[in-house]
Amino acid sequence: MTTMHKRFLLASRPTGEATVDNFQLVEAPLDERLHEGQVLVRHHYLSLDPYMRGRMSDAKSYAPPQPLGEVMIGGTAGEVIASRDPRFAAGDFVVGMGGWQTHQKAGPNDRTLRKVDASRVPLSAYLGAVGMPGVTAWYGLTQIIAPKPGATVVVSAASGAVGSVVGQLAKARGVRAVGIAGGREKCDYVRDELGFDACVDYKEHRDVQSLSRAIAEACPDGVDGLFENVGGMVMDAVMLRTNPFARVAVCGMIAGYEGQPIPMAFPALVLTNRLRLEGFIVSEHPEHWPAALKELGELVATGKLKYRETIAKGLERAPEAFLGMLKGKNFGKQLVDLR
Amino acid sequence: MTTMHKRFLLASRPTGEATVDNFQLVEAPLDERLHEGQVLVRHHYLSLDPYMRGRMSDAKSYAPPQPLGEVMIGGTAGEVIASRDPRFAAGDFVVGMGGWQTHQKAGPNDRTLRKVDASRVPLSAYLGAVGMPGVTAWYGLTQIIAPKPGATVVVSAASGAVGSVVGQLAKARGVRAVGIAGGREKCDYVRDELGFDACVDYKEHRDVQSLSRAIAEACPDGVDGLFENVGGMVMDAVMLRTNPFARVAVCGMIAGYEGQPIPMAFPALVLTNRLRLEGFIVSEHPEHWPAALKELGELVATGKLKYRETIAKGLERAPEAFLGMLKGKNFGKQLVDLR
Repeated sequence: MTTMHKRFLLASRPTGEATVDNFQLVEAPLDERLHEGQVLVRHHYLSLDPYMRGRMSDAKSYAPPQPLGEVMIGGTAGEVIASRDPRFAAGDFVVGMGGWQTHQKAGPNDRTLRKVDASRVPLSAYLGAVGMPGVTAWYGLTQIIAPKPGATVVVSAASGAVGSVVGQLAKARGVRAVGIAGGREKCDYVRDELGFDACVDYKEHRDVQSLSRAIAEACPDGVDGLFENVGGMVMDAVMLRTNPFARVAVCGMIAGYEGQPIPMAFPALVLTNRLRLEGFIVSEHPEHWPAALKELGELVATGKLKYRETIAKGLERAPEAFLGMLKGKNFGKQLVDLR
Repeated sequence: MTTMHKRFLLASRPTGEATVDNFQLVEAPLDERLHEGQVLVRHHYLSLDPYMRGRMSDAKSYAPPQPLGEVMIGGTAGEVIASRDPRFAAGDFVVGMGGWQTHQKAGPNDRTLRKVDASRVPLSAYLGAVGMPGVTAWYGLTQIIAPKPGATVVVSAASGAVGSVVGQLAKARGVRAVGIAGGREKCDYVRDELGFDACVDYKEHRDVQSLSRAIAEACPDGVDGLFENVGGMVMDAVMLRTNPFARVAVCGMIAGYEGQPIPMAFPALVLTNRLRLEGFIVSEHPEHWPAALKELGELVATGKLKYRETIAKGLERAPEAFLGMLKGKNFGKQLVDLR
C-alpha cells in the first residue's frame, strides 16, 4: 500500500478573522528517497500555537510571514523512519519544526531536529511542558519576573500550555501563583489540579474595574509579577494591582477582531508603580534552553509538573483545531495526532 | 526692618486643571530663633517641577500627597544665614527641599540639605542640570537605556530641564540624539544650541501617523532608546519606530484634561519589538547620585553642558509660573527667584 504524504499549505492571508479557507490540504504519495544527509520523519504530533496566527499575516512583526503556498510552520514530534544522516537512525524519536504535515524530510542544515528520550517523558510533552511552551514559561518567569519567595505572580491564560507551567514553576520557588482563565472548569483545574493558590475567571467580569477587584481579592499582598499571555482588559486589570517595582513578562498580546491594536488603558502605572515591562521571544534565547529543558523534563518525569492536552485526531482536523484554540476552546496544550 | 517670611500653602486640591486658587500665600515676620541643630536658610531659588502636580492630588501614586494647609513641596537653593548645626555655617551655599517659601528652618534630621560649591557652577544650576533634573536624565539614559555608541536615542520635552541633559549626555557618548519639542523656537534651540542631531516639532503634526513619519525621517536607523517625559501620542509615535530590543525609560506621563488616563495605543509593540519599558523615580536610586553629580558638575563648569532657565521674579509669581510650566510655557528649567 502506498503511504500518502499529506500537507497543509497557507492558501491565503486572513482579512480579519482567520478561517479554514486560509488553508489548503495537499496529498501525494510519499517519496521515500533520501539524499545524503537527509532524514525522513513520520510525525506523531503537530503542535498548534498562537504565534502561527501572527505568521499568517504579512504585517511587520518579529518574524517574517509564512510564505503563501508553502507548508504551514509548526513544531512536530515523531519517529525517524529512514536516515542518511549519521546523527539519526530509524526508530529514533525526534522533535523539530516539521510543519503541518504527516511526514518531513529534514535536510542536513535543519538545526531544529533533535533526538529526545521518550522513555521517561511522553513524546507529546516535548511539544508542550518540555518544549517551546515550557521553556517560554521558564524564561519569562525566571529571567524576567525573577520573583523572590513569598512574592505574588499572576499569569493569564493559566490553564494553557505556557500559563500552566508558569504557575507550577512559581509554586516550586515558594511564590504565590494566581491564575486568570476563562470559565469555571478551567479555573477549578488551575487551582485544584495544578495547585495554583487562586484562579480568577475573567468571563465573570464585564469591565476592568470588576475584574481588578477580583484580582485584588486573589492577591491580598498585591502583584509583584505578571506573566502576560493575553493583553487587553486582563492586562489592564492586573496592572492596576501591581506593587512598586513589579515586573511584567510580555509573552502574548491579542489584537482586536479586525487585527486593529487594543490599547493599554493605564500606561501611567509604568511610572507611578515603577514597573518594568519586557517583551520576549523564547527562540531568541537559546543559551537558556538546556537548563530549562533539564528542569522541565525532570519535573514531568517525576510527576511534579502536570499538564493537560487537547488532541485533535488526524491532520485534516488541524485548521479547525487551530481556529478553536485561538478562541480558547482547547484545554491545555493543543495538539494534532497525525498517526 | 523686619524680615518677612512668605510661604505658599496648598489650599485645596485641583478638580480637573490646577489653578492659582489652589495655593494660598501666608506672610509673617521671620522668626530667627534656632534650636540646637537647626539651620536657617534664605532661599535664592525655588525649583518648579512637573512632579508637584501629582502631589497636589490625593490619587494613589508613588509618593504620598502634599498635605493641605502645609507649605508646598519644592527643591530650593540658598544661603545659610544662621546655624546651630556644626556642619553648616553662615555664608554656606546649600540646596535642599525647602518648599515654596522665602526661608526655611532645616532641622537636624533634614537629610536633603547639603552644601554646594557655587564658585565653579552657578547656584541655580544645582536645581537643574547639576540637580534632580540632571540626575534624572543621567539615570534614565545610562542605567535604563544604556545606549551603545552609534545607537539612536529619542527624548521628548527635549528643551526642558531633563530632556536637554539627556540629549547632551547621549551625544557625549557617541549616540545619535533626536529631540521632540513643541514649536520652532524650541526645536531650533535643541538642534542648534544643544547640539542634538535633529528635533521634531510635535505641534506640526495632528495625528500619530504624521508624527511617526517625521520621527522616522529624523531616525533613519530606527529608534534604539526612548527617554519618555510626556506619554500619549508622542510616545505612541516613537514606539512605532523602535528597533528590536529598544529600551524605554519612562520618566513622565501626562494625564488628560480631567486627570483621566491616556491610553498607550500600540502595546503589542512591546512584544513584537521585544521592548523593555521601565518607570523610575530618581530619588529612589541615591547610590547613583554622586557619580551623576560629579559628571554633570564637571560638564557645566567646563561649559560642555548647556542649559537654559526661565526665572520668575518673586515668590508671589510661583503659582502662575508653575501652571505655565505645566502647559510648556517655560523654556528650559523653570525657577523662581526668591530674593
